[in-house]
Amino acid sequence: MSSQDTHQDERFDLLIIGAGAAGLTAGIYAGRAGLNTVIVDATGAGGQTGVASTIMNYPGFKLIQGYELAMRFREHAEEYAPIVEGKTIETITPVENMGTMHFRVRTADGDEFLCGGVILATGAGHRKLGVPGEEEFEGKGVSYCATCDGYFFRNKKVYMIGGGNTALMEGLYLRDAGVDVTIVHRRDRFRGDEIYHRQVEERGIPVLWNTVLEEVRGDALVDSVVLKDLKTGTVREMEANGVFIAVGINPNNTLAKDLGCTLDGGGFVVTDRKQRTNIPYIYAAGDLTGGLQQIIVAGAEGALAAMTAHEDLTNPYWVPPKTL
Amino acid sequence: MSSQDTHQDERFDLLIIGAGAAGLTAGIYAGRAGLNTVIVDATGAGGQTGVASTIMNYPGFKLIQGYELAMRFREHAEEYAPIVEGKTIETITPVENMGTMHFRVRTADGDEFLCGGVILATGAGHRKLGVPGEEEFEGKGVSYCATCDGYFFRNKKVYMIGGGNTALMEGLYLRDAGVDVTIVHRRDRFRGDEIYHRQVEERGIPVLWNTVLEEVRGDALVDSVVLKDLKTGTVREMEANGVFIAVGINPNNTLAKDLGCTLDGGGFVVTDRKQRTNIPYIYAAGDLTGGLQQIIVAGAEGALAAMTAHEDLTNPYWVPPKTL
Repeated sequence: MSSQDTHQDERFDLLIIGAGAAGLTAGIYAGRAGLNTVIVDATGAGGQTGVASTIMNYPGFKLIQGYELAMRFREHAEEYAPIVEGKTIETITPVENMGTMHFRVRTADGDEFLCGGVILATGAGHRKLGVPGEEEFEGKGVSYCATCDGYFFRNKKVYMIGGGNTALMEGLYLRDAGVDVTIVHRRDRFRGDEIYHRQVEERGIPVLWNTVLEEVRGDALVDSVVLKDLKTGTVREMEANGVFIAVGINPNNTLAKDLGCTLDGGGFVVTDRKQRTNIPYIYAAGDLTGGLQQIIVAGAEGALAAMTAHEDLTNPYWVPPKTL
Repeated sequence: MSSQDTHQDERFDLLIIGAGAAGLTAGIYAGRAGLNTVIVDATGAGGQTGVASTIMNYPGFKLIQGYELAMRFREHAEEYAPIVEGKTIETITPVENMGTMHFRVRTADGDEFLCGGVILATGAGHRKLGVPGEEEFEGKGVSYCATCDGYFFRNKKVYMIGGGNTALMEGLYLRDAGVDVTIVHRRDRFRGDEIYHRQVEERGIPVLWNTVLEEVRGDALVDSVVLKDLKTGTVREMEANGVFIAVGINPNNTLAKDLGCTLDGGGFVVTDRKQRTNIPYIYAAGDLTGGLQQIIVAGAEGALAAMTAHEDLTNPYWVPPKTL
């Protein structure tokens, strides 16, 4: 569907925001359940799946490129719901219409959708360091997800950048997966839980304290990292096959915040086990809700959100939860 | 791996019981995380996925046969964990060994596994109606799986008992397979998705509303069914070659019960959002835990269970939850 189309005259049962694994799976399930559904994405379909390099842990595909898997999801979802790409949603306004609750959804280009329910599947982004080579070598040795990519680095040398729980847990994960990992942290102590500090120490994972990544270097793939010791000022170039960066995750929660959705301390949307937020007829699925950020999990949450939306939207006796 | 092998001398980090979508996905994630993992199934790998007919809602495959998808899962999991088929697990006994908790897992054929944690992914089975003739004619005209047995009833007359998605989907499947099928439902409206209601209607599949199966009759094979109209009280004997029954599912919870896992009202294992049961180092995933019984959901729960098991098993400071 072209982004030039307008949608003022059409009323959808369900609008899904975000066309990653969560949103596309929600589209499949919602369409099959008989809901008149539309999926809207600010850029193109695919989400984090589409920008992943090689994926080896989505069941059914031993090895597939992220882009290819994303395109399969997209084509699959298009069987059941149109996907509108290139429209950024700016506001979602609850409106009462003939005694029924609706949402008026406005886009940056002046388009408007009217719908009965919304699934927020806007995802999350990995915080970047912004150092030279980071972007250039993403997927070529620079990774933001040990669970996704750690396996490729067995018996290889990598640096894990960060000092929070994610960095420590992923460092431990890499160690267990047979990766030669060194943790690099800019401070002289970790931010993460004590429990992980001890494990890092006991498992003998080397830690470079007061050290920052200055540059990632390589040819086709990463060959080395440039590290700076903040105390001494020493800059060293170290051989490396990979760099894992775990310096934070930013949920794309602007719309959720505007709607008044309850967020947790990390800014992730809180849902019940059926993916309902605290706002009636607003559901959330995928990385936006935190938890294990994996394609299979995002997909499952999308399926659940769609089935719950179907349940609520087709049930005239449903009473929205008062608290969450 | 042959079921003739014994495993007394090997210590596994994690043992996964059940090789359906949940167990196989758990195997992929556990193996990738570096846990020495084994998957054990009483029959062969595949679970409910393997006996499903056409699957159209597992993201990435617009249309795939259940058996084919199950084999893809199986081959995928085998990259990371051995699958032992044909061994029925009879007891799981907690043992303390050098101050560490383990489980001694015994099979019906006298084999034994020692492991640090267990993921229960034993699934759920088809519910029986308990009417006269049902058990007697199972495999002789009474079936719980249209995909498995539909072919035998081409150009024959069968009744499909049930009103949920499974009954409707299987009714449609039988119709497409050239079977003369009538749906029998005890209520005056279906429970399943609107999309299937419409298809049942559009394809002209006859439906007997407010009607229940009272008896299955025959000689060597099914010859007739006795149906009762609940509104009028009328009882009719109708000629039939087969009866398909799709009225719900029973979780395979014997091992979970023996372990002392908390169950819900339907007999499904209660877990936290990370798939922990109330018993330390025992996790549950997939249809055994209830909820939306879909491949994508079972897979996600398997992935979560494996990651949580990894977290707990590699963390000497983990304090098991006291209550759930």
